[in-house]
Amino acid sequence: MTRQSLGPCVTFFPQPTTLIGSVDAGGHFDLMTASWVGVVSKTPPTMAVALNRGRQSFANIMASREFSVCVVPENLMAAADFCGLASGRDHDKFKLAGLTPEPATRIKAPLVAESPLCVECRVTGEVTLGDYQLILGEILDIQVAADAVGEEGRIDPQAIAPLVYLGGVREYWSLGRKVGTAYRDGKPLFPARKG
Amino acid sequence: MTRQSLGPCVTFFPQPTTLIGSVDAGGHFDLMTASWVGVVSKTPPTMAVALNRGRQSFANIMASREFSVCVVPENLMAAADFCGLASGRDHDKFKLAGLTPEPATRIKAPLVAESPLCVECRVTGEVTLGDYQLILGEILDIQVAADAVGEEGRIDPQAIAPLVYLGGVREYWSLGRKVGTAYRDGKPLFPARKG
Repeated sequence: MTRQSLGPCVTFFPQPTTLIGSVDAGGHFDLMTASWVGVVSKTPPTMAVALNRGRQSFANIMASREFSVCVVPENLMAAADFCGLASGRDHDKFKLAGLTPEPATRIKAPLVAESPLCVECRVTGEVTLGDYQLILGEILDIQVAADAVGEEGRIDPQAIAPLVYLGGVREYWSLGRKVGTAYRDGKPLFPARKG
Repeated sequence: MTRQSLGPCVTFFPQPTTLIGSVDAGGHFDLMTASWVGVVSKTPPTMAVALNRGRQSFANIMASREFSVCVVPENLMAAADFCGLASGRDHDKFKLAGLTPEPATRIKAPLVAESPLCVECRVTGEVTLGDYQLILGEILDIQVAADAVGEEGRIDPQAIAPLVYLGGVREYWSLGRKVGTAYRDGKPLFPARKG
C-alpha cells in the first residue's frame, strides 16, 4: 500500500466521546470531555482515562479517588464539545451545557442524566505520561438506560447512539450499521480439520 | 433517567478494532485483534494497549519491546475476528486471514498492508492488571494510506472506513455520518461577554 508518514502524532480513531464526572471537596460537580478512555482489564473490570494534569477534573479525581465515565449520545454533541472547551474553574458546565447531574449508585461523583451508559469507577492506579496522567479505575458498576435494553438483556446500540470521536481529524461521527458479530464471523477462516 | 445496573463488567463502546503486529526472536510475525487500545498522551505521543498475558503477541512484545497498531477497515471484519479467535502458536494468522505483512519504517514488527492507518510504537512502560497487561508505547510514526489523504492533508474518514467495536454487545459496526466538528461546535454555549 502506498503510504504517507504523519510522523509521531495522535491521529487515531475511532475513539469514544465521554463526559467524565467528578466532585471536589466542597461538593461541587465538574464535567470534562474525554476521548482517551477505554477498558483495560476484566480481572477486575478496569477503565483507563488519560487527562491533562492542569484540568479541574484531574484535581477533583486525585482528591476524591473516584470518577464516572458517561458515554455521549449523538444529540449531546455540542454540549460535549463545550465541556471540552470550557474550564470548571470558570463555568458551571452542567448548567451551561444543559445537562443534569444524577446521583451515582457507588460513588459521590455525578452521572450525566442524559447519558445512556455510565460507568462508575474508583481510582486504583496512575501513570504519569508527560503533561498527562493515565488514571486507572476499577469499574464498580455500569448503569444503562432501561429503554436501551431489549429482550434477553441485549443492549440496542442504536438506542445508545454513541458519538464516535475521530482523533486528529477532530470530528464527531455517528455509528452506521452493523457489519458483523464478534467471536463468530471469523470462525469460517479456520482451516478444515483433517478427518 | 430510568436505569438498569449491569454490575461491574466491561460493557463499553464505541471502541476501535485494531490488529496488533509483533515479531518473535526468530523473526516470525504474529497478529492479534485488540479493541482495548487508545491514545493516552501527547507529550510524547503515546498509545496504551491492554493484552491478556497468555497471548503469543504479548510474549513477542515483551521480548522485542515494540509493536504496531493497525486500524481495521470494514472490509476486513471477518479477518480481524479470526485473528482474535486463533492463536499465533497454532496458526499463521497472516496467511489464513488473507493479510499481507508490510515492513514498518521505525520498528521490526510488521504492519498490515491492507490497513489504512498504522501506528508504530516502542514500549515505554507497563502496568499489570489481573490477567492483563497494559502496555504503554511511544508513537514513533503513523503511516496512513496515501489515497485516504485529501487536499491540505485532511484524512478522509470514509476512506479509512474504520470498524467500530461494541464491547459487551460483541458487535462490529461501521461509521455513519459526520455529526459535528470538535473544538468548534461547543463554542456557542459559552455565555455572551458583558460589554
